[in-house]
Amino acid sequence: MASIRIGLVGVGKIVRDQHQPVIAANSDFELVATASPHSSLPGIASFRTLGELLSQGPEVDAVAVTSVSAVRDDIAREALAAGKAVFLEKRPCTTLSALDDLVATARSGKLALFASWHSRFAMQVEAARVWLARHPPERLEIEWREDVRCWHSSEDWIWERGGPGVFDPSVNAFSLLTHIAPTRIFLNEAELFVPANRQTPIAATLDMADHAGMPVTATLDWRAEDSQTWEIRARTQDGLLRLFDGGARLEIAGQALPDTEVGGKYFEYTGLYRRFAELVHARVLDVDERPLRLAADAFLIGRRTPVDPFPG
Amino acid sequence: MASIRIGLVGVGKIVRDQHQPVIAANSDFELVATASPHSSLPGIASFRTLGELLSQGPEVDAVAVTSVSAVRDDIAREALAAGKAVFLEKRPCTTLSALDDLVATARSGKLALFASWHSRFAMQVEAARVWLARHPPERLEIEWREDVRCWHSSEDWIWERGGPGVFDPSVNAFSLLTHIAPTRIFLNEAELFVPANRQTPIAATLDMADHAGMPVTATLDWRAEDSQTWEIRARTQDGLLRLFDGGARLEIAGQALPDTEVGGKYFEYTGLYRRFAELVHARVLDVDERPLRLAADAFLIGRRTPVDPFPG
Repeated sequence: MASIRIGLVGVGKIVRDQHQPVIAANSDFELVATASPHSSLPGIASFRTLGELLSQGPEVDAVAVTSVSAVRDDIAREALAAGKAVFLEKRPCTTLSALDDLVATARSGKLALFASWHSRFAMQVEAARVWLARHPPERLEIEWREDVRCWHSSEDWIWERGGPGVFDPSVNAFSLLTHIAPTRIFLNEAELFVPANRQTPIAATLDMADHAGMPVTATLDWRAEDSQTWEIRARTQDGLLRLFDGGARLEIAGQALPDTEVGGKYFEYTGLYRRFAELVHARVLDVDERPLRLAADAFLIGRRTPVDPFPG
Repeated sequence: MASIRIGLVGVGKIVRDQHQPVIAANSDFELVATASPHSSLPGIASFRTLGELLSQGPEVDAVAVTSVSAVRDDIAREALAAGKAVFLEKRPCTTLSALDDLVATARSGKLALFASWHSRFAMQVEAARVWLARHPPERLEIEWREDVRCWHSSEDWIWERGGPGVFDPSVNAFSLLTHIAPTRIFLNEAELFVPANRQTPIAATLDMADHAGMPVTATLDWRAEDSQTWEIRARTQDGLLRLFDGGARLEIAGQALPDTEVGGKYFEYTGLYRRFAELVHARVLDVDERPLRLAADAFLIGRRTPVDPFPG
């Protein structure tokens, strides 16, 4: 089968660190062009915008949208309108209505569309999902604490309109939760802690449940100065499951599971591009809106509590 | 066909004004019981809760959930779990994740579920929808202005966590917009005007568009002291369409359309219960989440601007 000619829209650190080496190592794909106003990759045809790539560049079959999230909706729409398969970095869209529009457009054009929740392809996620399917949890807890000054220094967009605040990293937790939980989860209450000088929360707590009333809680905090924690705990009758380091490590009833490393340091993106190749060949969609919907629900019903201004 | 034995959960003004007389006039239904902690209807078996109605009351086939919206999610879930068809007043749920859960539960149980956007059954809505399908709009404008002191005096819940603020009436506008617009609409920007002493907005402006870039705007305001406006305008090449009084009146290119009154003062609810009967007999769903999703998107990406405190 002919390889999939792919263009990258947005050329930042994650493209150099992950997308480019993973595409190079996957015989399903051939990276033929990039589009970015400021950046390019050595040896790859570069254009300033997707529009220029499409009109002047080499033919592409697919586009991976890795630009900053505020412009991703429009770029994905433009790519689908041009009949291209689309790979979207997480969060796939700014809004649920935009995502719904992309889904409808891709369906009607029989185009592949992939909302790539990268955390789901972390090393131990599948093992956790399979184990929980057999050992129903009695309680689920998300603890997602990191230092925003370390991970998002000088990124003001994250605090502004449309910026998700602490829900930017936390949507990774939601993508894991909705994937490994054996039942549907919905939000009952949320509290959003918003710095007095910002639009979006620096921390949040969520009370969720499934249909049977199983409690699911989330503690999200961007003010963690020492240890950084990306952990989901499931309490079951057969012991505690801990999925931590964002899905890279797993412990069940005190026993650490051995690494199942296949893709080395490219583990997540290797899996993502394998999945995207399947979607392109089958011309189908893999779009799960649930992680974004949980965040939207928290903004919809969450009580806002002002906290100390965040210096910026 | 045997009539549908129905119970009403929540007995307030809208039940006395609309649900009860409309059910009485519809031979598809028989009102057999109510559940409410404080109220009842003369001559109808009454219980304090849905649980008591289900365990001690007469058999029911369907439940209409007309209680205050904060408890509607749980009541609908309980009714579906008991195998009953469910009619939900608008807003169908507090959150999108709760609505998704109800939909999945109803589907798996082959139960009828109706998210009853009552404005869609207003007198001139169908005429507006049909006309716009033939005369594509170049611009759509929502103007929804009312005096909250007139319509929601002493209703503090509307300002609190999970309360929608001005989006409570405006979701009616969104239910009309998404129904009569011939294309899919998504949100680009929103500004939410929040009283300094409240959690939820007293006014909002929304910038939306369809896939082709047609502008769609909404001006929502709860501070209108004189004239009350519930209007959608569509600018087309064949003139201006004005759907106003919340869907009850229609003007196209300056010509008022004659009333098509069938159900008299019960017009909207007559149509709603006819539709619900169809759904119950066919055991299918009619749930459109788009109006609620637009509100959720506005809360998700809207910029919050503080305004004068609202006395309460």
